[in-house]
Amino acid sequence: MFRSPVIDPDRSIAQPSDWIYRRDIVRPGSKDVFESVMDLAKRRGFIWPTSECYGAVAGFIDYGPLGAMMKRRVENVWREFYVIQEGYYEIECPTIAQEAVFIASGHVAGFADKMCQCPHCKEFLRADHVAEAGGIKNAGTMKNEDLSLALAPCKCLACEEVLGKVEVFSFNLMFGTSIGPGSQRTGYLRPETAQGMFVDFGRLLRFYRDKLPFGAVQIGKSYRNEISPRQGMIRLREFTQAEAEIFVHPNSKNCHPMFRRYADYTMPLLTSDKQLADEPTLTLSMQEAVERGIIANEYVAYYVAMTHALLVKIGIRPERLRFRQHLPDELAHYANDCWDAEILSDRFGWVETVGIADRTDYDLNAHAKASGTPMTVFIQYDEPEKVPRRRIIPNMGVLGKQYRNKAKAIFDALAESTPTPEGADVVVDGEKIHIPKDLFEVRDEIVDVRGEEIVPHVIEPSYGIDRMCYAILEQAYDEDEADGETRVVMRLSPKVAPVQVAVFPLMSRDGLDTMAREIQETLQKQNILAEYDDSGAIGRRYRRQDEIGTPFAVTVDYDSLEMQTVTIRDRDSMKQVRVPVDRVPGTIRALVDGKVKFGEI
Amino acid sequence: MFRSPVIDPDRSIAQPSDWIYRRDIVRPGSKDVFESVMDLAKRRGFIWPTSECYGAVAGFIDYGPLGAMMKRRVENVWREFYVIQEGYYEIECPTIAQEAVFIASGHVAGFADKMCQCPHCKEFLRADHVAEAGGIKNAGTMKNEDLSLALAPCKCLACEEVLGKVEVFSFNLMFGTSIGPGSQRTGYLRPETAQGMFVDFGRLLRFYRDKLPFGAVQIGKSYRNEISPRQGMIRLREFTQAEAEIFVHPNSKNCHPMFRRYADYTMPLLTSDKQLADEPTLTLSMQEAVERGIIANEYVAYYVAMTHALLVKIGIRPERLRFRQHLPDELAHYANDCWDAEILSDRFGWVETVGIADRTDYDLNAHAKASGTPMTVFIQYDEPEKVPRRRIIPNMGVLGKQYRNKAKAIFDALAESTPTPEGADVVVDGEKIHIPKDLFEVRDEIVDVRGEEIVPHVIEPSYGIDRMCYAILEQAYDEDEADGETRVVMRLSPKVAPVQVAVFPLMSRDGLDTMAREIQETLQKQNILAEYDDSGAIGRRYRRQDEIGTPFAVTVDYDSLEMQTVTIRDRDSMKQVRVPVDRVPGTIRALVDGKVKFGEI
Repeated sequence: MFRSPVIDPDRSIAQPSDWIYRRDIVRPGSKDVFESVMDLAKRRGFIWPTSECYGAVAGFIDYGPLGAMMKRRVENVWREFYVIQEGYYEIECPTIAQEAVFIASGHVAGFADKMCQCPHCKEFLRADHVAEAGGIKNAGTMKNEDLSLALAPCKCLACEEVLGKVEVFSFNLMFGTSIGPGSQRTGYLRPETAQGMFVDFGRLLRFYRDKLPFGAVQIGKSYRNEISPRQGMIRLREFTQAEAEIFVHPNSKNCHPMFRRYADYTMPLLTSDKQLADEPTLTLSMQEAVERGIIANEYVAYYVAMTHALLVKIGIRPERLRFRQHLPDELAHYANDCWDAEILSDRFGWVETVGIADRTDYDLNAHAKASGTPMTVFIQYDEPEKVPRRRIIPNMGVLGKQYRNKAKAIFDALAESTPTPEGADVVVDGEKIHIPKDLFEVRDEIVDVRGEEIVPHVIEPSYGIDRMCYAILEQAYDEDEADGETRVVMRLSPKVAPVQVAVFPLMSRDGLDTMAREIQETLQKQNILAEYDDSGAIGRRYRRQDEIGTPFAVTVDYDSLEMQTVTIRDRDSMKQVRVPVDRVPGTIRALVDGKVKFGEI
Repeated sequence: MFRSPVIDPDRSIAQPSDWIYRRDIVRPGSKDVFESVMDLAKRRGFIWPTSECYGAVAGFIDYGPLGAMMKRRVENVWREFYVIQEGYYEIECPTIAQEAVFIASGHVAGFADKMCQCPHCKEFLRADHVAEAGGIKNAGTMKNEDLSLALAPCKCLACEEVLGKVEVFSFNLMFGTSIGPGSQRTGYLRPETAQGMFVDFGRLLRFYRDKLPFGAVQIGKSYRNEISPRQGMIRLREFTQAEAEIFVHPNSKNCHPMFRRYADYTMPLLTSDKQLADEPTLTLSMQEAVERGIIANEYVAYYVAMTHALLVKIGIRPERLRFRQHLPDELAHYANDCWDAEILSDRFGWVETVGIADRTDYDLNAHAKASGTPMTVFIQYDEPEKVPRRRIIPNMGVLGKQYRNKAKAIFDALAESTPTPEGADVVVDGEKIHIPKDLFEVRDEIVDVRGEEIVPHVIEPSYGIDRMCYAILEQAYDEDEADGETRVVMRLSPKVAPVQVAVFPLMSRDGLDTMAREIQETLQKQNILAEYDDSGAIGRRYRRQDEIGTPFAVTVDYDSLEMQTVTIRDRDSMKQVRVPVDRVPGTIRALVDGKVKFGEI
């Protein structure tokens, strides 16, 4: 995900913007809830502008108390899939890395956007945005000089003056810094977590005892110095990624060991062909999609399906989710196949949220070449292969006498030499030495070769956690009616709701409060986040919890003291059931984990 | 923690180095396990050098698969205390912040080390290190020019040449970067997570419904561009902090609502007095320590005790842990009291790992002043206070006629004026106007004041997660004997051990493997990290798990198939017990949570 500019910076303009695809697909007549949900998010502590008192800087946000809790829950659902189910261990690399890493990865040379500065208002503008607004086609294939000329009649997106003479230049999107005193070493804030896992390949391989396939994952901050980010949580300069790098044998990409888990998983696919023909999505099982050659291999299909399951689990509605295959001209030159999970936003259209790519051996080859460290796996054959080999056997006795302390070096050099019928020329310590043919013997043999070194291919599912959080918030926002008033309710999945249960004493006296506090404490001990609230009318307390998406509320009333029962209220239906107080923790746990539905209590 | 340079950069040299205090306290004759534990950590995937294939950069590390898992468990124990027990919500601010934040906090001006460059070998050196090695006292109080002269006869710490003419200069330890194109805005990587919580004070206050006390916590990356870090995990340029900022009423610092929880918690305290008198620690309960004025207040004492409990829980041995009070000249000028939790390392001596400080109203005042945003809480009095107030009541009729459209402005200005017997002078739109005494009346009244705005004080416990992880690893490393051979065993607490249980089929056939896989899957579903291993002799498999600290192992043997029982083995005692297979998940969960001891199964 997010990686297209690296591949071919000149193309980033021609292709559809990486985060909006066909904005016009937004449901006609649907209400844009962006303002309402962002207002609630700020007011109740989900999302805050960063360092607001100094004037917030675009592209940065704070997760407030509820937002940070929700984000952590989203990350933990991700771990349930990738770490627990798949068994891919998480690693943690620094966010600052030395320049060499990003020279090898291509980010230093190619991770750039084209931009220009308005000569009138001095605003920095993305050249692709100016071109798009000015109706210029193929801006992406133009050289900077040509694009400069083409943009001259376009209007500035900020002050709306005609630009006139303007210079288009490339702006690298990595945040740079310098490590140590005296600008000793250039460093960059990583633009993706992936490179750390590629660079650690050798260590990871040994950790997994030299066997393919294996995977490593990372959840952490990544950074892109966007030119003018104006889309809130959708385009951040500092954001959280969850990436998995799965290293597989190139010949085994159709043998995912657990493929049966998702073979029958059926979902709509917006294939590259369908997009080009402007036709609707194709609904297929993963098995069919692989068999018909629509998804490149079992590995990609497996993670496409798993991503669908994961997104639905955190509360994304399937009807607002689609998987779009990269078009041939959008696909990285080295990539075999790539699918984006896109979520439909009322405000932003289809937002690319996850990318699942078969990156072949591109990354490992790039780092092996740049670092001089082989990044291969030794694959043992079932049976050793018979391979012809030429051996050069020196006459040690004569060589030893004749060349004395150079004999060992000559011996080694001979083994690597290509003798002619007259003898062999070797270079030892810079000195060229001719060894006559009678000082060695050339023997052609058939040898057993036990296996070979191969460069694994990489399958990469890459998730944008902040975009997932935004989609959750936007889709959860709802208004209905309660007690004759409009009720604002966040219909968050109990898996990701920050507060899992609220505990209310009907009155803050007569021992109701003590009992409620005890219930809260019992719940907390079981690692259920329970919020105690005794302030205001009970209806107002329900509303407060509805607004932050707390799925359940336990109320202690006067019957509770007598009968040792409490009510559990369901946020969505607003129904209540009475349960014995000692069953509360088990019931809430089962409800939160989705093991039981409210109607089944 | 880590913050002393901000306060007074000139003092950072005089005081004991912030991470080593009395290195000579290291137990005589104790074996330094640093090499052994770091070798194991690298080999088995706890800690790796970062981007090793390009030459690792000092001050950065990778947490490998096991290290990252352990670190996450440590963070989660921290959350059990601060988020679940204390109820302080976690927030997440960006790691990049705008310059204004760090101008206000004092980091831009003062967060610096003094350094010099060796004129011979060009190595950058910390001036305090050179001075210390050269026996120069009071280097910390010298100006840069004087220190330059004083260092001339000292030897370079790298090439050992006498330095001669050398220039001492201040080097700011923040990593700088620039946000947006055209170097539009200076940004820094945060040197601590704390500032984000100070800056968000207003939002946090509203989240907590305008009531003190409340707290916010943050676990995340912080950055310091150290001059020449050479202490592995102890001095990192990118590290993880867990910080809590607890906002309290200045008059309520001796009324922690839950103080009783730790009032009787008794532990050795190395007070400032005892240090100055070179006397041993004092063992006191928190109650006594507060009553005797040794710890400044209940809040500080509460978090000192809680930190002790937390560190012991993650596996730090109490005999290698002490709490040291800052000396008067070491304490920040604004701080009221500060205690460091120090852990004794074989290699590094007493390592400052946690700091617990009463920072008073310093931080909020600094940001309020710099940003122009009040950072106060309105505290309502129990009873309104009667306060004398002078009111100036204009004669509206006359004023209105005489000054017409200026009348309103004059009216407002009069209310703020200080009249003399002749009248009042006011300034309206830059014009000075004299208002004769007969145009207004001065009335002295007694009014009801409902409450007041106060600036809360901040109690800050600040934890260095990486140092905690290092201490855990160092203290867990052990060697004993098993089967007549040396056994390397990491005696990690089950709370933090990365792999919680291993599952072995005695043989990888006859259905033993299937049964073992099923057990592993059942455990995983209960969120217990279970590793399956069927490779090699059973003794070798036990050794592999002992070496990574896996506390328990479940073995499936031929009796298992017949009797539906398995053995559970204890890492430390190497004893085994047989339990019914259906009791395995519950038993392992209880063992890992410390709710039952192995001997009690």
